[in-house]
Amino acid sequence: MIQTPYYLIDKARLLPNMEKIARLREQSGAKALLALKCFSTWPVFDFMRDYMDGTTSSSLYELRLGAEKFGGETHGYSVGWADHEIDDAVKYADKIIFNSLGQLDRFGAKTQGIATGLRLNPQFSTSGFDLADPARPFSRLGEWDMARLEMAQGRINGVMIHYNCENDDFDLFSAQLSRIETEFGAFLKTLDWVSLGGGIHFTGAGYPLDQLADRLKAFSDAMGVQVYLEPGEAAITRSTTLEVSVLDLIDNGKKIAIVDSSIEAHMLDLLIYRETAKLPQNGTHEYQIAGKTCLAGDIFGDAKFDKPLAIGDRISIDDAAGYTMVKKNWFNGVKMPGIAVRDLDGTVKLVRDFGYEDFAAALG
Amino acid sequence: MIQTPYYLIDKARLLPNMEKIARLREQSGAKALLALKCFSTWPVFDFMRDYMDGTTSSSLYELRLGAEKFGGETHGYSVGWADHEIDDAVKYADKIIFNSLGQLDRFGAKTQGIATGLRLNPQFSTSGFDLADPARPFSRLGEWDMARLEMAQGRINGVMIHYNCENDDFDLFSAQLSRIETEFGAFLKTLDWVSLGGGIHFTGAGYPLDQLADRLKAFSDAMGVQVYLEPGEAAITRSTTLEVSVLDLIDNGKKIAIVDSSIEAHMLDLLIYRETAKLPQNGTHEYQIAGKTCLAGDIFGDAKFDKPLAIGDRISIDDAAGYTMVKKNWFNGVKMPGIAVRDLDGTVKLVRDFGYEDFAAALG
Repeated sequence: MIQTPYYLIDKARLLPNMEKIARLREQSGAKALLALKCFSTWPVFDFMRDYMDGTTSSSLYELRLGAEKFGGETHGYSVGWADHEIDDAVKYADKIIFNSLGQLDRFGAKTQGIATGLRLNPQFSTSGFDLADPARPFSRLGEWDMARLEMAQGRINGVMIHYNCENDDFDLFSAQLSRIETEFGAFLKTLDWVSLGGGIHFTGAGYPLDQLADRLKAFSDAMGVQVYLEPGEAAITRSTTLEVSVLDLIDNGKKIAIVDSSIEAHMLDLLIYRETAKLPQNGTHEYQIAGKTCLAGDIFGDAKFDKPLAIGDRISIDDAAGYTMVKKNWFNGVKMPGIAVRDLDGTVKLVRDFGYEDFAAALG
Repeated sequence: MIQTPYYLIDKARLLPNMEKIARLREQSGAKALLALKCFSTWPVFDFMRDYMDGTTSSSLYELRLGAEKFGGETHGYSVGWADHEIDDAVKYADKIIFNSLGQLDRFGAKTQGIATGLRLNPQFSTSGFDLADPARPFSRLGEWDMARLEMAQGRINGVMIHYNCENDDFDLFSAQLSRIETEFGAFLKTLDWVSLGGGIHFTGAGYPLDQLADRLKAFSDAMGVQVYLEPGEAAITRSTTLEVSVLDLIDNGKKIAIVDSSIEAHMLDLLIYRETAKLPQNGTHEYQIAGKTCLAGDIFGDAKFDKPLAIGDRISIDDAAGYTMVKKNWFNGVKMPGIAVRDLDGTVKLVRDFGYEDFAAALG
């Protein structure tokens, strides 16, 4: 039995997402690139590769990981390329996507041999959280002024428009895409490709995938462009658990189970976005599930079980793939969860573990 | 010239903190242990060792790091020890401090050979931030019920009381210590040692260090205990900068300089606690300093310079030691800052760097 804590990626749960992506690609003609900023756990790239066209990235290291470990089409975006990075970036990328006209001016000559794009910020988004809203006032993410976009014409052959965030509302997606057609259509028609970014939750239960495919195809046809999608969370949603064990049980007016993990160290977005983990909710025995760091608010959330918890009991925390492994850190020196993969035949293999030597090496 | 980004620990700026700690130890009789949860960058432990008594920790890995890299007295605290950890913990620690009576019950027999303590939660604190407030309702951090504390009697010879958080108000500290004397004094008098934890900002400018020393000595005398302090931020405050370079300059109604770093990846507490970085404020040329990740809110804060910024310019972000290196992560695959040390003679040496191989190894 693998010692907790560890992330457990279940290929049988990953597969339905992959199949939906493959179906969407086929029906819509859009290409799908895995957004490595959300999920970079390359030991399962062999499995995902058959269902997706490649990867997109937000830094040189992600770009290289995509090129070396995933293959296929490799988009290289960065909010800011450095002078010392751009030659390597061009080497690994099929397309370089600049964040600003200034970056295009600085490095455009370097990318002449490959497809080149610019980030277009439509000045609206589906994000309800200021922190994650690319359309917030004075956003530094992309260009929106038509005069500036036109200054890029002839030097780019595509744009990336990332404005959705966990958007599971097809009608909203479609309406916003219509706005893009209206406001930027004339410009887009001069291009070869448009990436609509990530954040469309099209692998969720009940999402009208056929309608999305039709809508993407209509957009592609109307604009005369190859459409790209960059699923992150949609590709890996519900595929992975964080496996933890109960270390202590406390009752100080509320029953608390302390587990051998931490939201800050292992599922950071729960802390940043003040969200609750997906915990077992079956039964009448209620516990707050809390982490083992010194942080008072290191709390996964409330759970229910069909019998009282005991020390040593294992708990699976669901939906632990997106923005978790890529953000894990050594806060409090808590053991970093290993990474395990369950194959389709049920075999579970630990593909990476982390120990004291990794902790010490992170600090000197 | 070292390539940015990197953390730069300046021993000449660390020294005044160390000298204040040494003076406080001498005047008060209290011992001072570095809180590794705040700062674990062991390449400067050789330098710090002469001024402090040892380390305190919040996990087995921190405990071992303290024992192996710092030496001296080594306190081992954990919110939850696991069965498979406790033997190693006893091996590395001078004292084991349990978080709950339950943990003492479970492991007390194992720690009979060394000093053993319990975390006492006085049910008040100086933290104004719920997330970091150990006295919040249903806190899982420590015991407060006198009946339960008495159940530990005979099995422990000390307690750890951590209830201050960046407290730079001596009068408040003194008043709260009086409350502890009043409410828990009879119990404390049965013990050999009391750790008052960290969070007392006694190395800050203008802090009445002599009064603190007197107050600690009076407490020690009245209770008949050896007092411990566990400075984290106080030990390394203002010692370190994060050195970054400007990658792009954007003006979309507000002047923004994008730098080769990120608050989420390299100074995480700025994001979690919604704080602003300590940036240059001299001059009339104003810029928002922003990170290079895809996060819309990846913003260090506003800065002023005496001339316009240019791409490639370097910026020093101050006070970058506490809870930064221990929480750095690979979000967006942004290059992790190296760690450099400036010796007292001015020589700067890069003691650790991180590259693509580290990134890839973190994920599989």
